[in-house]
Amino acid sequence: MNKFWWQHPAKAIDLLAQQAAEARQQQLTKPLGALGQLETIAIRLAGMQGNICPRIQTPWISIFAADHGVAVEGVSAYPSEVTAQMVANFSTGGAAICVLSRHIGAAFEVVDVGVASDTSVFRGVIQDKSQQGTDNFLVQAAMTSTALDIALNAGRSAVQRAIAMGADCFIGGEMGIGNTTSASALACAFLRATATDMTGAGTGISSTTLAHKTQIIDRALAHHQADKLANIDILATFGGYEIAALTGAYIAASQAGLPIIVDGFISSVAALAACKLNTSTHNWLFFGHISAEQAHSKVLEALDGQPLLQLDMRLGEGSGAASAYGLLQLACVLHSQMATFAEANVSTSGA
Amino acid sequence: MNKFWWQHPAKAIDLLAQQAAEARQQQLTKPLGALGQLETIAIRLAGMQGNICPRIQTPWISIFAADHGVAVEGVSAYPSEVTAQMVANFSTGGAAICVLSRHIGAAFEVVDVGVASDTSVFRGVIQDKSQQGTDNFLVQAAMTSTALDIALNAGRSAVQRAIAMGADCFIGGEMGIGNTTSASALACAFLRATATDMTGAGTGISSTTLAHKTQIIDRALAHHQADKLANIDILATFGGYEIAALTGAYIAASQAGLPIIVDGFISSVAALAACKLNTSTHNWLFFGHISAEQAHSKVLEALDGQPLLQLDMRLGEGSGAASAYGLLQLACVLHSQMATFAEANVSTSGA
Repeated sequence: MNKFWWQHPAKAIDLLAQQAAEARQQQLTKPLGALGQLETIAIRLAGMQGNICPRIQTPWISIFAADHGVAVEGVSAYPSEVTAQMVANFSTGGAAICVLSRHIGAAFEVVDVGVASDTSVFRGVIQDKSQQGTDNFLVQAAMTSTALDIALNAGRSAVQRAIAMGADCFIGGEMGIGNTTSASALACAFLRATATDMTGAGTGISSTTLAHKTQIIDRALAHHQADKLANIDILATFGGYEIAALTGAYIAASQAGLPIIVDGFISSVAALAACKLNTSTHNWLFFGHISAEQAHSKVLEALDGQPLLQLDMRLGEGSGAASAYGLLQLACVLHSQMATFAEANVSTSGA
Repeated sequence: MNKFWWQHPAKAIDLLAQQAAEARQQQLTKPLGALGQLETIAIRLAGMQGNICPRIQTPWISIFAADHGVAVEGVSAYPSEVTAQMVANFSTGGAAICVLSRHIGAAFEVVDVGVASDTSVFRGVIQDKSQQGTDNFLVQAAMTSTALDIALNAGRSAVQRAIAMGADCFIGGEMGIGNTTSASALACAFLRATATDMTGAGTGISSTTLAHKTQIIDRALAHHQADKLANIDILATFGGYEIAALTGAYIAASQAGLPIIVDGFISSVAALAACKLNTSTHNWLFFGHISAEQAHSKVLEALDGQPLLQLDMRLGEGSGAASAYGLLQLACVLHSQMATFAEANVSTSGA
């Protein structure tokens, strides 16, 4: 039987390396568990890399940008033009993620997977789109299955570029005015929740607009009978192209054995979609932060994901994931460079 | 009237620079507040440095080590010898804080302010102690007022070395078997709390030892009539030399205008002591993390301190503060390098 590419399993975790790393943590000169999540990170990375002392030093950041048909319903604080304007800002290096990318020494690219205008005029923006913006999911499915395939593949292509450049950590980001509305609808459909549970202020809308946004999502869920849709159809019906590209990227990265740092609410919904389509992708995910968007905690809970940072960020663009990247490096250097009790002649616990 | 040095006010925050930085944050290409605490950090640092675009690039780490008379009561999972053994581990670079220090490019020093054995045999360990370990505060005050002065001054001397080397960020750490017992007693006395509220598992003691530790603290609080003691006497009665040195260092750093990253529970108790002795020191404190030690949240609450990291770390040594250092750098580069809406021709919010 033929499977779609995104159904092939993720690379297996090397459990022997992971166990060896766990044993090493117990010998380092500190009370057991005293480095908290920094221990867990190192142990997980050991399993991913098949190396008792893993290293992370070549991060890769792909930002996927697209517009949303549902934006015509007036669900965002910003006009749709801002998507293309921000793509230009990514291109010239002025956006938050560009600054973070330079600071952590990441390779950085922007991929237009569905912006509602021509972004080929902006230097370096990769063109990988089937359509200028999704359709309005209040009226019809956001995308066709062909368009969804193209978007999933756009994510896979980004990962292939990352691998070719020797990346050892994948960070995805998104830009798309209206995309918290799409992400909330997806979260509702995947988790069988109502819009009230999964809808927040996004880039900063008023309480009136929030009520309107919530109503739009509930109407769309009812219109498409979301509770009867298969996972892949949920993604096509309510997705954005940038969310589908992230979904494809996460699956492809897990298949290639590339550790992933997931960003905020929208990226976490893409991670949820990835895990719904391919449960084995889950093993390769780190969660960079928990955002100020209230529904994010519910999505993280569904993913059993423990966020690394809690800084009340809510920008997207991969900014939370890039901010957390340094913690993966810290975890690796502590794990590999600390002395053991034996090396340092330090007495172990008598408790 | 003559004041003690530690009563002189901290350097004033430059409110004009702080306001200018706040105005700049509103012009950067992101929704207002979307970088969360990274915005607040940059704004506060602008006020500290008197510079609309602050920079942090020369961190300094001083670790203060001392032993505790109360350790004879069997309150720790480790024997007192571990304090000196860990000083040796700091000296040879194998401890967690040494690895972190190298990773962030910090100047690093270890100061013996009261270890119960001779540490001058270990290369590079600065000797600044009046006594080998405190007295057992279950029986008598932990230190004399003269010894407290010496310890406070040891902290000030460390800051003077940091300033002389051009440091722009001060991180203090501590090592001392038994020092969570001292810190819990101090927190109880400063905050009029009971030992049950302020006592935790430290390096990892059993529930039996925890009950014993709690009882020791309550007995000591009653013995010394802690609720009638002046703040400076609380520090002398229940303090450790490393805690007093941190207290002196925080006050001196605030007087010199050096931003401070406070570490975990014990360091936060030292910060509490510093603010009790000199309220203006508070303006210069960042809180690196919230530790797994349960009383830490109560001390942070009393200090109105928002921790940067929540990684379940509980090692001390300055490790949580050093792990958070990177976030101060991120905040500065984002603040100074992001494009404004005008520079990037991006539309502002219509909401």
